[in-house]
Amino acid sequence: MDTILRATASEVLARVEGTRPVGERPQLLAALEGTALLRSRSGLEARPVAQLPSSLDLAHLIDHTLLKPQACAVEIDQLCDEARTYGFASVCVNPLWVPRATRNLEGSPVRVCTVVGFPLGATTSRSKAEEAREALTQGAREVDMVLALGVAKSGDWEGVRRDFGTLREATSGAVLKVILETCLLTDEEKAHSCRLAAEEGLDFVKTSTGFSTGGATEADVALMRSAVGARCGVKASGGIRDYAGAIRMVMAGATRLGLSSSLAVVAGGKVDGEGY
Amino acid sequence: MDTILRATASEVLARVEGTRPVGERPQLLAALEGTALLRSRSGLEARPVAQLPSSLDLAHLIDHTLLKPQACAVEIDQLCDEARTYGFASVCVNPLWVPRATRNLEGSPVRVCTVVGFPLGATTSRSKAEEAREALTQGAREVDMVLALGVAKSGDWEGVRRDFGTLREATSGAVLKVILETCLLTDEEKAHSCRLAAEEGLDFVKTSTGFSTGGATEADVALMRSAVGARCGVKASGGIRDYAGAIRMVMAGATRLGLSSSLAVVAGGKVDGEGY
Repeated sequence: MDTILRATASEVLARVEGTRPVGERPQLLAALEGTALLRSRSGLEARPVAQLPSSLDLAHLIDHTLLKPQACAVEIDQLCDEARTYGFASVCVNPLWVPRATRNLEGSPVRVCTVVGFPLGATTSRSKAEEAREALTQGAREVDMVLALGVAKSGDWEGVRRDFGTLREATSGAVLKVILETCLLTDEEKAHSCRLAAEEGLDFVKTSTGFSTGGATEADVALMRSAVGARCGVKASGGIRDYAGAIRMVMAGATRLGLSSSLAVVAGGKVDGEGY
Repeated sequence: MDTILRATASEVLARVEGTRPVGERPQLLAALEGTALLRSRSGLEARPVAQLPSSLDLAHLIDHTLLKPQACAVEIDQLCDEARTYGFASVCVNPLWVPRATRNLEGSPVRVCTVVGFPLGATTSRSKAEEAREALTQGAREVDMVLALGVAKSGDWEGVRRDFGTLREATSGAVLKVILETCLLTDEEKAHSCRLAAEEGLDFVKTSTGFSTGGATEADVALMRSAVGARCGVKASGGIRDYAGAIRMVMAGATRLGLSSSLAVVAGGKVDGEGY
């Protein structure tokens, strides 16, 4: 089995092993250059993408996401219930809701993920770090920070690196992702941000906030995977509405999916409505 | 002269007196129920709105705003230069840029304004307060916080009040505005938020972040003015693109305008392009 593929899947594996039983459908862990890594009841298996079963389990890859500002307490509760029922990797909520989501998911393998400097990435490193520390204290186990886009656009890549380093230090022991907001970056800026993220030890690079002019594309996911290799996970987020779209992202190199249409994706169907 | 009109204009007056000379065009300070308060070289004057000069000076009412996440250093510098040239009330920038804007505007009457919990309002009160404190330390003199929309939508008005109180305490001596994001609230929620803001001693209620589904409307500005009376200023923001639009907002009760099209407004013209 391909070593890089296995390394790419290692984050997914580390989390799913021992927490969630494999059901009827094999779990899709990762894919690389036409080969997919599956986990079924008989163990791990690499298969050519062309020979995949028509229905795969993706729940363990999904950050079940509700970030719209007007979301209220009962909607957060419902999100948590759904995550527990379907076995999603996490719920992704605004910082305000971390304590409530943590209480809700106590005793469950579903993690609480939150966002910092969100969605503009234009707060100070100190603010982002404080936000992250408070969220971790309140029970969050994953933090999705937003790239300081204006710093990157000013060509201050050392500033971008420092921002990553400050957040990495503030989130020691937790999963740290950086949202690039790919729709606002050039390919060169995307690749450079990815390399810095990998060098600073971040766990994931992530495409989109869902609040800007565009979401995840296969091309961006592939570019990001190519830039980080097996050093980081890649999270595709924004505009993924159905099973086929989710599969396409994993085939392009994603090992996590940020979705608000998670139920449609696990049902294999498709829903209309506003995104993320 | 109408006492309430004069009280409404007091915030504007307190700031413009002694800082900026009146030019050829009279300064429009405020308007209430068909009467406008002007400041010209001969002093203050109340006039029926129907008898206003065709061109009024609005610069002193304008927060010259650049909040798009990809704004880079040279754009911030240009914003500051423009604010100094035209005598805007403030520049409104993301927290990341407060130190730079402060250095840029040293020795000028133009204030630095920043935003906290922006644009979702969904961070914790503690985070918002920390963000505000850091910004004030770095030179900001005005802070625009975002209402915790999800808390309001959950009916937890005591939570909303506490959020306001925490931020008021953190910004003692500075101007504190709260952005309601009116496009996401019912009229009742808007009015209730305004009353709480006034009770907690906030300086302004403000319509919009410019990042949601709608901006300032005359109806919302009038509703907000009616709810706060002369206790707070009202800032209209989001989607105001030209002089006529700006005048309409003042006539509806606004005493501050959040604009990215400020140059078009002071020139009396109109520009196309994306908002805020």
